[in-house]
Amino acid sequence: MKLSALLTSAGINIGVCALLLSLYSVLRKQPGNVNVYFGRRLAEEHGRHRDSYVLERFVPSPSWIVKAWQYTEEEILSAAGLDAVVFLRAIVFSIRIFSIAAVICVFGILPLNYYGQEMHHDHFPSESLDVYNIGNVMEKSRWLWVHCLVLYIISCAACTLLYFEYKRIAKMRQIHITRSPADPSHFTVLVRGVPKSTEESLNETVRHFFTRYHGPSYLSHQMVFRVGKIQKLMSNAEKVYKKFMHWNATAFDPRSRPNMFRCGLCGATSNSFELIRSQSEISATKNNPSHSYLPEKECAAAFVFFKTRYAAVVASKVLQSSNPMLWVTNLAPEPHDVYWSNLWLPYRQLWLRRIATLLASIIFMFLFLIPVTFVQGLSQLDQLQQRLPFLKGILKKTFVNQIVTGYLPSVILQLFLYTVPPTMMLFSTVEGPISRSGRKKSACTKVLYFTIWNVFFVNVFSGSVINQLNAISSPKDIPAQLAKAVPRQATFFITYVLTSGWASLSSEVMQLFGLVWNFLKKYVFRIKEDDPASVPSFPYHTEIPRVLLLGLLGFTCSILAPLILPFLLVYFLLGYVVYRNQASNIMNVYCSRYETGGRMWPIVHNTTIFSLVLAQIIALGVFGLKESPVASGFMIPLVILTLLFNEYCRQRFHPLFRNFPAQDLIEMDKADEQSGRMEQIHEQLLSAYSQFPPESHNVCLVDGEGTSGSNRKDESTELSNDLSHPTLVGLPISRLRQVVTAVSMIVSLQSKSSPM
Amino acid sequence: MKLSALLTSAGINIGVCALLLSLYSVLRKQPGNVNVYFGRRLAEEHGRHRDSYVLERFVPSPSWIVKAWQYTEEEILSAAGLDAVVFLRAIVFSIRIFSIAAVICVFGILPLNYYGQEMHHDHFPSESLDVYNIGNVMEKSRWLWVHCLVLYIISCAACTLLYFEYKRIAKMRQIHITRSPADPSHFTVLVRGVPKSTEESLNETVRHFFTRYHGPSYLSHQMVFRVGKIQKLMSNAEKVYKKFMHWNATAFDPRSRPNMFRCGLCGATSNSFELIRSQSEISATKNNPSHSYLPEKECAAAFVFFKTRYAAVVASKVLQSSNPMLWVTNLAPEPHDVYWSNLWLPYRQLWLRRIATLLASIIFMFLFLIPVTFVQGLSQLDQLQQRLPFLKGILKKTFVNQIVTGYLPSVILQLFLYTVPPTMMLFSTVEGPISRSGRKKSACTKVLYFTIWNVFFVNVFSGSVINQLNAISSPKDIPAQLAKAVPRQATFFITYVLTSGWASLSSEVMQLFGLVWNFLKKYVFRIKEDDPASVPSFPYHTEIPRVLLLGLLGFTCSILAPLILPFLLVYFLLGYVVYRNQASNIMNVYCSRYETGGRMWPIVHNTTIFSLVLAQIIALGVFGLKESPVASGFMIPLVILTLLFNEYCRQRFHPLFRNFPAQDLIEMDKADEQSGRMEQIHEQLLSAYSQFPPESHNVCLVDGEGTSGSNRKDESTELSNDLSHPTLVGLPISRLRQVVTAVSMIVSLQSKSSPM
Repeated sequence: MKLSALLTSAGINIGVCALLLSLYSVLRKQPGNVNVYFGRRLAEEHGRHRDSYVLERFVPSPSWIVKAWQYTEEEILSAAGLDAVVFLRAIVFSIRIFSIAAVICVFGILPLNYYGQEMHHDHFPSESLDVYNIGNVMEKSRWLWVHCLVLYIISCAACTLLYFEYKRIAKMRQIHITRSPADPSHFTVLVRGVPKSTEESLNETVRHFFTRYHGPSYLSHQMVFRVGKIQKLMSNAEKVYKKFMHWNATAFDPRSRPNMFRCGLCGATSNSFELIRSQSEISATKNNPSHSYLPEKECAAAFVFFKTRYAAVVASKVLQSSNPMLWVTNLAPEPHDVYWSNLWLPYRQLWLRRIATLLASIIFMFLFLIPVTFVQGLSQLDQLQQRLPFLKGILKKTFVNQIVTGYLPSVILQLFLYTVPPTMMLFSTVEGPISRSGRKKSACTKVLYFTIWNVFFVNVFSGSVINQLNAISSPKDIPAQLAKAVPRQATFFITYVLTSGWASLSSEVMQLFGLVWNFLKKYVFRIKEDDPASVPSFPYHTEIPRVLLLGLLGFTCSILAPLILPFLLVYFLLGYVVYRNQASNIMNVYCSRYETGGRMWPIVHNTTIFSLVLAQIIALGVFGLKESPVASGFMIPLVILTLLFNEYCRQRFHPLFRNFPAQDLIEMDKADEQSGRMEQIHEQLLSAYSQFPPESHNVCLVDGEGTSGSNRKDESTELSNDLSHPTLVGLPISRLRQVVTAVSMIVSLQSKSSPM
Repeated sequence: MKLSALLTSAGINIGVCALLLSLYSVLRKQPGNVNVYFGRRLAEEHGRHRDSYVLERFVPSPSWIVKAWQYTEEEILSAAGLDAVVFLRAIVFSIRIFSIAAVICVFGILPLNYYGQEMHHDHFPSESLDVYNIGNVMEKSRWLWVHCLVLYIISCAACTLLYFEYKRIAKMRQIHITRSPADPSHFTVLVRGVPKSTEESLNETVRHFFTRYHGPSYLSHQMVFRVGKIQKLMSNAEKVYKKFMHWNATAFDPRSRPNMFRCGLCGATSNSFELIRSQSEISATKNNPSHSYLPEKECAAAFVFFKTRYAAVVASKVLQSSNPMLWVTNLAPEPHDVYWSNLWLPYRQLWLRRIATLLASIIFMFLFLIPVTFVQGLSQLDQLQQRLPFLKGILKKTFVNQIVTGYLPSVILQLFLYTVPPTMMLFSTVEGPISRSGRKKSACTKVLYFTIWNVFFVNVFSGSVINQLNAISSPKDIPAQLAKAVPRQATFFITYVLTSGWASLSSEVMQLFGLVWNFLKKYVFRIKEDDPASVPSFPYHTEIPRVLLLGLLGFTCSILAPLILPFLLVYFLLGYVVYRNQASNIMNVYCSRYETGGRMWPIVHNTTIFSLVLAQIIALGVFGLKESPVASGFMIPLVILTLLFNEYCRQRFHPLFRNFPAQDLIEMDKADEQSGRMEQIHEQLLSAYSQFPPESHNVCLVDGEGTSGSNRKDESTELSNDLSHPTLVGLPISRLRQVVTAVSMIVSLQSKSSPM
């Protein structure tokens, strides 16, 4: 690819970015889009006096950028949670390290590469980009020590920055734990694998076990209910009801009309079964959260509440029984974070599910090679012309040619990549995590491995499946192979930064899918009511892998093809503004009802270390190919030192991200006991975890896990929402059957009489 | 190799075995060897009336075998501990699985291999052993499904047996924990990384921390003291003293004479410094074990005693502080098991030590290739003849030729292998484990990896370093490579079973080194007193890897070269008798003052699974080479099922080997509290862990870690023994210096006057 092609590509992307960003600054001021960009509550507050200034509404302005800059980290932390701060810290880290790298490499390495060989340099824009790569440096060049030194500087800077970030985030996590005043999850343990007994109910078994072995600290417990049959009945009833309502749009009960659509996509709301509501049953459900009104549906899991935080941590850490598959205890997730529909899974199934998901993910990774191979084919234009002869005429034009080689491959790859996060999220759901945040973290690592494998390695090893397998089967040659392939693919990576990085950022800020969905909802489906349940949570599982992948590209290409660094730096700067904007205005775009408490950082740290080591290994291979054994030899201590640094961080910081320090918890317990707050906390605790919340319409329970909007219909969330229906939960199954029969009878009568 | 060569080798080994075993049955009756075969206490009891039956003493008899059979598992458990039982169970498992394998393979596979090709079979003894291998089966043979089926049967039988053994041993471990009535280690936590403070001493810091955070359950604590300088002074003083005593054999003080030798090799005894003993100081040391009489020597570690077992486990499991490198808690090892000289190591060093040891072990593994290559050279006789032409005449004789090819290589390898366990034990010491059993377990895994790598893989890949590296660098070809190489090396493995297996067993029962040492001691050094400190502990770190390696050879060769199985079965049967004999008579041969509590079993289990999977992968390669894709395809589900089984066992049983179940501990605590024993236990607890035991002469503190006797001089054990010296510990350093000066003056005077 020539420099001009790159500039074309950059131009297109800058244009698209500018367009989308100005569109955003206009669209966000339109009252109609308020629920796309601001969620419901802010809309209610500010919606009214927006209509007055008509002209300003249609003028693009950078005010949102200024606003995004103004927020302090403290404000973001309190508004969007620790995860958002951690994500922003990852971007800040990237900005810092790539500023250093860009300055050193552009002024130190780029001229060395450019004048590496005694050649006549063409006219600037028509020169191949390869002259900026390390490939242009002569073999046995004396200047390779500069590359070696630069890599040392970058590695040291990265490690230093990583250390301070890790330390800072560990501290933040500690503060996050100690400051959350009465988080019920600190007092609660989720116990699974409760043994079934013929003599007593599971409820009794749990009570006896914990009174016997944790008597002094045990407070109460609450069984988890399996919802299989009820759910089936419910969904049957609802299908029938939906049909029924479809034909009787306004005939039956005016209050239930607007919810017809939400039944299907976002779960039932509280008034869709208005006809059988019974106040006495609701209050019964409300007051006895742990009462076994459906004894045959109890499953072998329970939330156990303890009197102190320390007691809960202790119960979660100790092996309870001599059969490790029974009485498995974990600290409970936060109430909103609980993934109810996974809790009934028998614990002894989980290891099998985990292995099955792992295998499925690996198979998916390899199946994905097919579209990648196709993308690779595109960049070899002659092949494409042979297959599609009618394109010959068009492809002869330089501009089209430049678009097809420089832009199209990564756009196609990008489109295919959009299917990955939903699939990985599905795998993570099947895996059986107990919390939504756990599921998201698991999906995040899956997407990360997937992206690194499919975008980096597969592209590097020239796309074809056979080449890759050869590379896997001879690990000794990998450095040399990488050293040959990475500089060759550097131009592709630069365009990838442009398309995947820049463009995705602007589409993120625009919320394209949200806009389209909003438009469809308003003008096609004609739903007027704003749906609070459709506010998604932040898609960490797509954004973190993207940021980390671009970091990986930056590190690996830094000394080989330094031209990528300025583009990358622009990406990170833009990303900082955009994500700050998204994260800082909580309830603007995303609803953050649960979070991992900063547990994403170890993923960021480990991936960065991996990127560094990979860059060092590639450099080792490159120096080997350039026949510079000294520079090559200097890489080995660097690799070892980086790995040692990583091991130190793992020892020093990582335990904090898996455990709560006893010291802090005991201090918190003592403070609460002295101030007399403990009683109050215990009272709140008993009603904190309700599998069937009595009032579901003011809670945003549905989380659309992707930005794409295509996966907002989350079957399992729906399931838990279906069951949150207060009127049906209290009913015995026989009564439910009667309801279903009754409704279906009405429907059949109706369908006969209505004009089909 | 021909069958006759194999029979020669077998003959030699059977002869050696029979000779050694009958020698053993004679020697064990000799009163002079009583302390080799029986330790001191039994000797005292039975020694007297042995002298009467003179004739019987010199007639070989199988009475010891009968005796070994008579012990029940219960008796062995109570006498030799759980580790001995686990080791015997590993042998029982091997006997069972290889009985099944031998029957199926010898009657099912051997004829198929023998008549695999339509060839004229030679005279029986002069036929090559290769006709019994799978190499003799024709390509695309229809009979390969039999091999496939047999491997399925063996794998299923092995997994079933493994499951029941794991279950049984987990149960035994549970009983072992619950039955040990007042084990102080259950109540004690070793805390390391106590933060240094300028305001208060470490002692105070520990007290404050545990009273504050574990107030209700904290009982007391005891600091660990660093012993660097005292130790130096002590050893100086002792060197001087030894010299001095050597020249003044009987002149000074008759009571201290016999100990002169033990000072150097087995640690000081209580009366070797009789001259400066002071009763008042001893009693001071005795009564205040945690008193800081040397305040400047306190190190950042302490034993913390808790009131209940459960509290101790809780304190050991929970992350204490927000800096994971501080207040690191682990359950303490048993008092005799504590490895005192490692306790002062700063905790933050340990991860570096672990990595360094790992690297050192790997380097050692590769350095060891040099002797292995030499051994391989021996089996190619023509090369040897070229180098040493004078051997030509001798080597032409068939018998010598057969010995050199069939016997010598494995003897040489064997001799080199004797250096491995002491080296690995040294590495494990440097690693910094807190307990002797932990050190032994760590050495055991190191020796195991080493043995499998150097005996199996290196021999299979034909010895030369370059070949091996090629094999490592192309993992895809490994099955095919193994499939080619393993049958080729099968005869070597058979001779290995004969030499390493059979011969080592008989030398184990004979205690050759012990005998020689005993002889030297009596007739060369003229030391009359029996030394209780020289009774070694059982060398699990050499015996477990040997048994597991032979198991690995059995599994991998089972369908490829079934001829190995009968020899292996004989080995395991003989081993069962021998080890039962050694283990059942505790204080006979070995002193078992500490143990891992059955934690060796997961090593046995994992290695067996590894062997099975390796055998299956090799079979996959062999079927591939024989162009039988169906049989080859059938191997893949077998590999997956075996791995799944392993994962299940890891989930179901492995946690029990790392943790104590809370349920059992709480039951024990309750029982003790109800019966009122708790008070008594607490009292005993306070004096259980004494870094400087007041009376060391009736404790067998030295453990010679190898059978070889060459590594009985364990420097670090010596160190702790040196310091256990009651008379010197109470002294201030200045006083010690005076002693040293005084003694050295006496020595210098003496050496001038004595006739050199």
